[in-house]
Amino acid sequence: MALEVELLYDVPRLEEKLILKALREVGFDVKPTNIKALPLSWDEAPAPLAVVRPISMQRAVYAASIREAVGVRTINSSMCIMLAGDKVLSLGRFKRAGLRFPKSMVAFTAEAAEKAGAAVGYPAVDKPPVGSWGRLVTLVNDSRFLKSVVEHRELLPSQTARTHIIQRFINGGKKDYRVLVLGGEPLGAMLRIAREGEWRSNVARGGSVKAVKLDGEVSELAVKAAEVIGGEFVAIDLFSDDGEFLLNEVNGVPEFKGFMEALHINVPMKLAEYVKTVYRR
Amino acid sequence: MALEVELLYDVPRLEEKLILKALREVGFDVKPTNIKALPLSWDEAPAPLAVVRPISMQRAVYAASIREAVGVRTINSSMCIMLAGDKVLSLGRFKRAGLRFPKSMVAFTAEAAEKAGAAVGYPAVDKPPVGSWGRLVTLVNDSRFLKSVVEHRELLPSQTARTHIIQRFINGGKKDYRVLVLGGEPLGAMLRIAREGEWRSNVARGGSVKAVKLDGEVSELAVKAAEVIGGEFVAIDLFSDDGEFLLNEVNGVPEFKGFMEALHINVPMKLAEYVKTVYRR
Amino acid sequence: MALEVELLYDVPRLEEKLILKALREVGFDVKPTNIKALPLSWDEAPAPLAVVRPISMQRAVYAASIREAVGVRTINSSMCIMLAGDKVLSLGRFKRAGLRFPKSMVAFTAEAAEKAGAAVGYPAVDKPPVGSWGRLVTLVNDSRFLKSVVEHRELLPSQTARTHIIQRFINGGKKDYRVLVLGGEPLGAMLRIAREGEWRSNVARGGSVKAVKLDGEVSELAVKAAEVIGGEFVAIDLFSDDGEFLLNEVNGVPEFKGFMEALHINVPMKLAEYVKTVYRR
Amino acid sequence: MALEVELLYDVPRLEEKLILKALREVGFDVKPTNIKALPLSWDEAPAPLAVVRPISMQRAVYAASIREAVGVRTINSSMCIMLAGDKVLSLGRFKRAGLRFPKSMVAFTAEAAEKAGAAVGYPAVDKPPVGSWGRLVTLVNDSRFLKSVVEHRELLPSQTARTHIIQRFINGGKKDYRVLVLGGEPLGAMLRIAREGEWRSNVARGGSVKAVKLDGEVSELAVKAAEVIGGEFVAIDLFSDDGEFLLNEVNGVPEFKGFMEALHINVPMKLAEYVKTVYRR
Repeated sequence: MALEVELLYDVPRLEEKLILKALREVGFDVKPTNIKALPLSWDEAPAPLAVVRPISMQRAVYAASIREAVGVRTINSSMCIMLAGDKVLSLGRFKRAGLRFPKSMVAFTAEAAEKAGAAVGYPAVDKPPVGSWGRLVTLVNDSRFLKSVVEHRELLPSQTARTHIIQRFINGGKKDYRVLVLGGEPLGAMLRIAREGEWRSNVARGGSVKAVKLDGEVSELAVKAAEVIGGEFVAIDLFSDDGEFLLNEVNGVPEFKGFMEALHINVPMKLAEYVKTVYRR
Repeated sequence: MALEVELLYDVPRLEEKLILKALREVGFDVKPTNIKALPLSWDEAPAPLAVVRPISMQRAVYAASIREAVGVRTINSSMCIMLAGDKVLSLGRFKRAGLRFPKSMVAFTAEAAEKAGAAVGYPAVDKPPVGSWGRLVTLVNDSRFLKSVVEHRELLPSQTARTHIIQRFINGGKKDYRVLVLGGEPLGAMLRIAREGEWRSNVARGGSVKAVKLDGEVSELAVKAAEVIGGEFVAIDLFSDDGEFLLNEVNGVPEFKGFMEALHINVPMKLAEYVKTVYRR
Repeated sequence: MALEVELLYDVPRLEEKLILKALREVGFDVKPTNIKALPLSWDEAPAPLAVVRPISMQRAVYAASIREAVGVRTINSSMCIMLAGDKVLSLGRFKRAGLRFPKSMVAFTAEAAEKAGAAVGYPAVDKPPVGSWGRLVTLVNDSRFLKSVVEHRELLPSQTARTHIIQRFINGGKKDYRVLVLGGEPLGAMLRIAREGEWRSNVARGGSVKAVKLDGEVSELAVKAAEVIGGEFVAIDLFSDDGEFLLNEVNGVPEFKGFMEALHINVPMKLAEYVKTVYRR
Repeated sequence: MALEVELLYDVPRLEEKLILKALREVGFDVKPTNIKALPLSWDEAPAPLAVVRPISMQRAVYAASIREAVGVRTINSSMCIMLAGDKVLSLGRFKRAGLRFPKSMVAFTAEAAEKAGAAVGYPAVDKPPVGSWGRLVTLVNDSRFLKSVVEHRELLPSQTARTHIIQRFINGGKKDYRVLVLGGEPLGAMLRIAREGEWRSNVARGGSVKAVKLDGEVSELAVKAAEVIGGEFVAIDLFSDDGEFLLNEVNGVPEFKGFMEALHINVPMKLAEYVKTVYRR
């Protein structure tokens, strides 16, 4: 009997092409669905399992949710993608599970942000709950700088963009660790280092990566973080703060090109094999 | 020993004032928290239970989530407010539970919207997943009208606003039913009727309300809808379609001034008594 | 002595490349300035004359204005680009000069728009004052459709986008005439015809073009429109309404690729020759 | 014969009420037009002269332009309101007339802004071309801060908001001079002083005002600035930089409540008398 899997995507990056190929190689009949070309309906289930890969977090959540409504198994689930994609929700899950992250507060107004900045201390990091590639993540030196950030964000029409996570700046700065976790197991770890003249380590901002040995503490923290978010295939970002590791954020639809290159791990094949293992279980 | 409850709010409407008063009358020491004035931290729990009342859906979700992270019981929970506040997610839960709603599709682009319009048929209703008081909910006569709506929404910077729920227009139109559900029991039902020259029945758009007898079918559907969303205190909106009832949407932070006036039910006192019943249970 | 001219641009389309080449062929030493790469200062004048070609109307106005401040001759001038780029201002100049255009009103709110729609009659065209390629230009059938357009535009943060030009829909529809005017002389005329399923004739929306003979009335109206806007090199769009010609709009930084192909006229060479003629005059 | 004047407004502030009263006191039959309630048409002229008072700069420009199209005399003219309301255009006019202002550059991208910051030197002021009450006017300490401002403004959909005027910060800071000019004559001058904890002196940001003697140099500079902008009734803001005065900006629809209180000058009556003097001249 046919092994059918749907691949939900909006923009086919290298990652999606590699996943498609790997799924086919392990024997799946893959149904690719371009959610920009077709409407989604609560009356259809192209396959019993869907791999969810839209770049837009919101679209990924919606596509997964619509499939789940008719009994489809999704990797990752809509709930995981939402909890990972919204940093306020991620931190709440971390806290509830007793996992460490930098001291943080949430402010909805200039007045509250000023109090949060004073409580967290400067320099501080200000970031909106939702966003990728470090966008709008700002290192603020003092309350005047923070005030300017709040004033600018007030003009954005989305309530999410007008929410501020104000966080202690971790001294290490300029670098963080990324661990890919698949089915409760870490695939490996890499260090991301910001380029000259930029403090954000995102590869999209010119950051470079290199493989690092999987430390036991990092590994344990990453696996737990994936678990509390409900993530089967996620990337966990962490900071090192004077030897202690702190969680930063989770990617629920992880990019992995840089990871593959740095660690020489065939991520899409491992994902495809995992999908086969859990299929119809 | 003191009964302590937190009241989370951003704008104190009549509803919040009445809830505050009722909670005090049943013996609670109420801690009101204005989330516009203070930052929220994952290190504090002003009370073991919080009644969540911010008008902004996003702020309500965040405030509830932050409290839940330190073990606070929330009414409603962050998850309920999110599932209710996002209509794509609500419909997914309804579908999974086998609850009826009008034929609907979700489109992310003009191309997909055109196909959705053709599949659902005209006139159709187009609405964004998130929004209150009927904002941007549009009755579109034909594909040219729908195309114009998509073109306008493309300019909005939020991905949510660029998502289209395209839904069969229910013939009854111009009116819907609202049922308030508290702790799994319906408090009553009212009919909302659109004002002359407007097809949306929202009170904020001039709609009028009147009490109606609680029909068994409506009552059952509303209670089930509240349950699948995880709502302890929610408003359920339904359409009547040739005698059959269909779910429209859920309000996770319900307004109830019009309901109180139409049905002569002391909603805040009933809520306060419910909160007391579940407190520390 | 060297003939120096600056070419101000942001995105180098085919048009800008052809202009650069033609200016060189007629003997100019061309200084191209990419206004996205360099800041502009009120203390510099790379050449005594500048050809102004940024795609963004606002950037074109600013770049021209900054050069004019130090005595540079600009083609077109900042004032022309602004008067052409803003349709409320264009219509004002047409009216003052007694030039014909379709009956139009300007509304800033839903209330005013409803009155304008009733006065102009349906179907009507609603368009924002600024915008290219027919964007947001909407053919509205009735007041409910118009109301929906206003409600959507209210969410846009720019006051310009929240301004509505409400205009009688010209029966001919689906086609208009474009005349290129250079130095007070018409270069030729073409007809633009909307593609199947679209009423806007913009080439960017799939419209096709064909050469037409330059009618004396059209020619005279186009030349006068260019004159009242202060345009040395502009495109004039007109409607034919039961044999009478009416002005639609002016392009102050005209695209001309389609025009060249349809009419076999070497537009950039004619422009370069014109620039040479007026240079240092 | 009746003296008729139109008062164009959107929000009736104290200023508009005082102007209405004063115009009546000097004998005018005043036709107030609320441009939010009525559409404007190019076919009507309620009076031969219009006093233009909408708060929204863009609406003021449009309302004035539409009246001018049918021969109405406007105070101020659409051109003046636009040149005053857009700081890039104002500075261009100042430069052309040889009037002094702080060293400034204009940047459209992060790349250009970085170069402008380096050329102007830090701390620098970054402001968008259009905006009132100091909104988004930011004092940036270094290139990282400037980069953050550019990154935030990139998200705003208006090209104007994505344009950066980067200006040398004037040491005096925290205070500036405001001169009201009417019909080529200065009415008086006041000093505006920023409140504690804020560097912007705008009254809307808590700044205080006090009357100062009209210095000859200030007076001359203000009158010339009004002239080059074409302003009949405008407010001119200036900085003092080590004894030398530099122009900051012009208000084409000036508020004058604070000015009246500080200087005990009946501004609306002076305006009304001026309007009477120029009426039908």
